[in-house]
Amino acid sequence: MARYGGIDLGGTKIQAVVVDEAHEVLGSSRLPTPTTGGPADVTLAMIESINVALEDAGVPRSELVAVGVGSPGVVDDAAGTVTSARNLPDWEGTYPLGEKLGAAFDAPIALSNDVNVATQAEFDLGAAKPFRSILGVFWGTGVGGGLILDGKLWEGRGGAGEIGHMVVKKGGAQCPCGRIGCMEAYAGRKAMETEARRRHDKGEKTVLFKLMKERGRDRLTAGIWDRALKHGDKLAQEIVDRAYGALGAGVASAVNLLDVEAVVIGGGVGIKLGETARDRLAEEMQPHLFNDDRPPAVLMAELGDLGGAIGAALLVARA
Amino acid sequence: MARYGGIDLGGTKIQAVVVDEAHEVLGSSRLPTPTTGGPADVTLAMIESINVALEDAGVPRSELVAVGVGSPGVVDDAAGTVTSARNLPDWEGTYPLGEKLGAAFDAPIALSNDVNVATQAEFDLGAAKPFRSILGVFWGTGVGGGLILDGKLWEGRGGAGEIGHMVVKKGGAQCPCGRIGCMEAYAGRKAMETEARRRHDKGEKTVLFKLMKERGRDRLTAGIWDRALKHGDKLAQEIVDRAYGALGAGVASAVNLLDVEAVVIGGGVGIKLGETARDRLAEEMQPHLFNDDRPPAVLMAELGDLGGAIGAALLVARA
Repeated sequence: MARYGGIDLGGTKIQAVVVDEAHEVLGSSRLPTPTTGGPADVTLAMIESINVALEDAGVPRSELVAVGVGSPGVVDDAAGTVTSARNLPDWEGTYPLGEKLGAAFDAPIALSNDVNVATQAEFDLGAAKPFRSILGVFWGTGVGGGLILDGKLWEGRGGAGEIGHMVVKKGGAQCPCGRIGCMEAYAGRKAMETEARRRHDKGEKTVLFKLMKERGRDRLTAGIWDRALKHGDKLAQEIVDRAYGALGAGVASAVNLLDVEAVVIGGGVGIKLGETARDRLAEEMQPHLFNDDRPPAVLMAELGDLGGAIGAALLVARA
Repeated sequence: MARYGGIDLGGTKIQAVVVDEAHEVLGSSRLPTPTTGGPADVTLAMIESINVALEDAGVPRSELVAVGVGSPGVVDDAAGTVTSARNLPDWEGTYPLGEKLGAAFDAPIALSNDVNVATQAEFDLGAAKPFRSILGVFWGTGVGGGLILDGKLWEGRGGAGEIGHMVVKKGGAQCPCGRIGCMEAYAGRKAMETEARRRHDKGEKTVLFKLMKERGRDRLTAGIWDRALKHGDKLAQEIVDRAYGALGAGVASAVNLLDVEAVVIGGGVGIKLGETARDRLAEEMQPHLFNDDRPPAVLMAELGDLGGAIGAALLVARA
């Protein structure tokens, strides 16, 4: 029987799935992304992630016919390379990821952009199944966007979907990317943490950093933000509200330009905040929608955390 | 011989062309849009515009095989109707424009959105000929956008291209559309005039309104803005600079989302300010482009004022 592997390569974790020909998940795994060692060590962890998922599925490695990978950075599938993968250790240059994984599994490897594969998975199997044209909004450390227009992934010249760097406030806050006024400067988890730290250092009260310490974390994870909101933490609520405002303006701008049928929200923060995130996004979009009598459907990503890995497996399982 | 008519229906003027099978313009006309009388009187002026263009071309009406129309408002080609055409007199409801024109010319009529036909014309015959994916930016009373993706007009659910209502400054200026922070709130000719009047009424000096009076106009036309800039008028320059800033942020946002190959700038103000507009747009986009090492080509519309009418003729000449 033919089995397909999918790997979602993230800055903090590597997730893998093994699926069958019907795209059913047979097994999965989740490993921390190595923080040192460069691309070679990351590649070893990726190989391990598939092996653990095969074990979880009870599938022998001989049945694995191909592996798909969703990766950050500049992905060149034809060349089998990934260049300047953000948030990955020492991955500034170009690394022949396809060749290395292909040798390890003795199987063809397909590479694609992480956000695009997650969008494709929601389109094929998840929340966006009823639609032909969608915008995927992946709200995590940054804010990534994926576009499917009339049933086909839209990549432009290879760099489309940078929704996080749409300008929502000219002359506004500085984005982690260095530019000014990007949506991500308000809504990205990283930017939200910077803002929380700035206001905390100025003496404002918040449970955010206390929760971080208690959980032994070195950053404000989506779970910590969620917990702080449930505590009624005022500072956390204000920063999250600001994020919703920026997401609403930016996503509405994208809808005014493209008039897609549906918006699917996912990503680490989006999934953690769940239906509240979906409802608040729809609410904050509304005043900025030009065709406000027929807003797009706003939907929660259905495949959750595994969406990226499933989408990566689809890269090869569909072919 | 088969000849095709094209009509660009605008808020201040109606332009028409007659083209041959090679899309060559044989004759043209330009009439003021009636300011009273409603859709019926506008339709009579549209019929007249084609008759004048036929005369200009020396083409007998018997050779006219079809007429295309680019119209503002909500255009339904299948139904042959135009609804809520902005800036046209008493055109709030739905008017059977296709049927009326069809009866007058005894020929098939095709209707489409004014901005889309102008974008298509630049793509087929104008500045964007070398490209497959473009964004047309029509800078006039408002700011309209047209998208061609992989060679095909992208209309979404029928309302795509509202680039003027992408948010560039959350919490910023009020747009003539009533919303807050739209690109058009800074860059539309109408909004620019409102801002000039506000500052003039507060006592700031400008030649804008003096030029308007001298020319016997009741609004600040693109020509008046151009003249004031050449006079070195400080207030005019500041308002135009603000418009370039908003256009740069908004168009860069669209490029970050879609990664098109080229941006074509046209429209009444864009064409009047010419190469300066093109260069300033490219300059103001640059700091907001995520893939800033390979910006899209930024080009001046080549078909000028007649682009809309030529595009409208293409609607039928291509079929």
